Amino acid sequence: MDDSRRSFIKQSVGLLAASGLVAGGAKHAEAVEPPEVPPSMKGPGAGMGEYGSPAKYESKVTRTLIRSQPGTTGSGASRTPLESLEGMVTPSGLHFERHHSGVPDINPDQHRLLIHGMVKRPLIFTVDALLRYPMISRIHFLECSGNSQLLYQPAPPNLTAGQTHGLVSCSEWTGVPLRVLLEEAGVDRSAQWILAEGADAAAMSRSVPMAKAMDDAILALFQNGERLRPENGYPVRLFLPGWEGNMSVKWLRRLKIVSAPIMTKDETSRYTDLQGDGKSLMFTYPMEVKSVITRPSHGMTLRGAGLHQISGIAWSGNGTIRKVEVSTDSGRTWKEAPLVAPVLPRALTRFRLPWKWDGTAAVLKSRATDDTGAVQPEREKFIAEHGNNAIFHFHGIQAWGVSANGEVKHVYA
Amino acid sequence: MDDSRRSFIKQSVGLLAASGLVAGGAKHAEAVEPPEVPPSMKGPGAGMGEYGSPAKYESKVTRTLIRSQPGTTGSGASRTPLESLEGMVTPSGLHFERHHSGVPDINPDQHRLLIHGMVKRPLIFTVDALLRYPMISRIHFLECSGNSQLLYQPAPPNLTAGQTHGLVSCSEWTGVPLRVLLEEAGVDRSAQWILAEGADAAAMSRSVPMAKAMDDAILALFQNGERLRPENGYPVRLFLPGWEGNMSVKWLRRLKIVSAPIMTKDETSRYTDLQGDGKSLMFTYPMEVKSVITRPSHGMTLRGAGLHQISGIAWSGNGTIRKVEVSTDSGRTWKEAPLVAPVLPRALTRFRLPWKWDGTAAVLKSRATDDTGAVQPEREKFIAEHGNNAIFHFHGIQAWGVSANGEVKHVYA
Repeated sequence: MDDSRRSFIKQSVGLLAASGLVAGGAKHAEAVEPPEVPPSMKGPGAGMGEYGSPAKYESKVTRTLIRSQPGTTGSGASRTPLESLEGMVTPSGLHFERHHSGVPDINPDQHRLLIHGMVKRPLIFTVDALLRYPMISRIHFLECSGNSQLLYQPAPPNLTAGQTHGLVSCSEWTGVPLRVLLEEAGVDRSAQWILAEGADAAAMSRSVPMAKAMDDAILALFQNGERLRPENGYPVRLFLPGWEGNMSVKWLRRLKIVSAPIMTKDETSRYTDLQGDGKSLMFTYPMEVKSVITRPSHGMTLRGAGLHQISGIAWSGNGTIRKVEVSTDSGRTWKEAPLVAPVLPRALTRFRLPWKWDGTAAVLKSRATDDTGAVQPEREKFIAEHGNNAIFHFHGIQAWGVSANGEVKHVYA
Repeated sequence: MDDSRRSFIKQSVGLLAASGLVAGGAKHAEAVEPPEVPPSMKGPGAGMGEYGSPAKYESKVTRTLIRSQPGTTGSGASRTPLESLEGMVTPSGLHFERHHSGVPDINPDQHRLLIHGMVKRPLIFTVDALLRYPMISRIHFLECSGNSQLLYQPAPPNLTAGQTHGLVSCSEWTGVPLRVLLEEAGVDRSAQWILAEGADAAAMSRSVPMAKAMDDAILALFQNGERLRPENGYPVRLFLPGWEGNMSVKWLRRLKIVSAPIMTKDETSRYTDLQGDGKSLMFTYPMEVKSVITRPSHGMTLRGAGLHQISGIAWSGNGTIRKVEVSTDSGRTWKEAPLVAPVLPRALTRFRLPWKWDGTAAVLKSRATDDTGAVQPEREKFIAEHGNNAIFHFHGIQAWGVSANGEVKHVYA
């Protein structure tokens, strides 16, 4: 029996003992050999670096790229590998992407932001000018409204948690409250909307209600401490906490103050929700209460019965997660999972729960509740209400089936 | 007058108006031309990427490398560029480094962690086994006890905030509570200390009090969501919240349970604090309450009188920051700066305060108070008490002098 196997057996026994699930019975009678001195201790290691990268042994932990237009490189999305991550912060290198015409190369010294339309004083800002304004910082998730869209399909996708749900990420965003700049421009009282336009080749454009802009909208300049990454809107993006990601226009160049929505293609032909009755919902902004178990999840294999830790994330664009319940019997019974502090509004919230797996088939689910009282619905109920023609705003419960051999697969249950 | 200059003047006026520091008087009569359509909108942008990097325009935002042994590459430290960052999270690529013999290359499949000594059951863990244990996540700063050591010198260093204070960073750390594994091993009641040893060529070793290990010590496996970076201890490190960074042994391979401190070289000849009377303090573990203004700071130039935002970070290894006061007149008067939520124990806490600069010479200081009531001392007072023979645990107040021409420099004041 090699070291690894012996250690694993020790751990399995030990886990139970440490958690009090087995009273006594833990045996560790074998002599333990000290590990051999490894090669890493026999010569100097690598030098320091000006900007670090992940370990080469983690090179498989990447975003999953899916191009929506064959032949293009920048149209489509890349997804965060949720199943490989822990905690609430998404490293910026793995933050999901969604582009409509690639990532523009923008020199911050050349970039300008225009605020015009129904204002007393049209204004043009350099990035340096924006950096001088009072800033705020907030930890918030960002979710593409097309996240989890494959769950509208009749058969469960044969994909990982990240590949299905990885169009959500969470960062600390720092920037200028949009309200400050709007007040400086002097918004006309009858102006109720803002057209936000990006400096990419798609001229990505959305209409934003004035109330949101005046409430908690941020002109974000920093992400997780450093300046925005190119794929997240460098040098400046709009950020609308809790709302569908598409509206948080990246590479922001223009805010036109207007009286009514502009009805751009991305709020008419796209980013509307086709319902079962053939009608479409428009202007469905907040991302609804949602959760997903990230470990164990599709593609993993449980190595033996015994104690495992279930870990997952929950979030709501309407507020703060109040409760996450976990079921290991496909929703017949539920147990509340402790939430990891700090539990913040419109941020990913990590939950974890120990699970003693008896080695038989099981179905794992998580169900989130936010502080408005909204509860994440079962997939079946969500589809019954909304049909399955839509591609946006799916937030039903995710089920993972565990086989007796430990294999975990996406199931509808 | 070019666009940039015009915009800057608008901003200066506007900032005052928006903040209510000037009642009326803001003028924006000039017509504003919409910005020209930039090149970025005239053709598709770059493709998506499996793992992202900062914008090329931010290539100067790097760690500052300082080798302590000429001719070596991995002995020394690299510092976080605090003056370029915002918020509380440090991106992992810019987390400070401190190595004693470089960054070892450790294959996680080969790595073993041994717990032995005064235990009922010596245990060897694979990394896979550790990953199965219940995990916790905490946002905590990590500070090298040698941080800010140049402020012991008689003349103020001609260096940036990051170059003097950048041996502190803040991350979300996720891992296994050390207590769980110690309880599994069955620690002898008379064992009061633990020797922690790293798998680097320096065999970096420290003695850790059992009380801390049982309290809040973490075997960290993840940093800011993803697995530890190599320079931060991949695949597993010890993490002792609030204590001098040197004790949070990286690349952890061995925990030996013992009855008394082992007195390794890094707790005798190094990491002790030589006082003015020639005696040394040993076992000075918690990093004391501290703060630094990161913007404006040494090397920056204020572009004109008017409103500026002072931004900085505060932290305490003994608890939670309760208050940060800012002075713009070298400590004669102080004003409390709002703290950015969430304010967490043993985490960096961002503070920001608007400052209307009148264009005359000024000296900026920040003074932090933690929830034990401890107050960051003036440098002069700290040196009077401790002498200036030491190189560790400096936590005096940092002063930045602003000249009438806007230049900001490190001063003792």
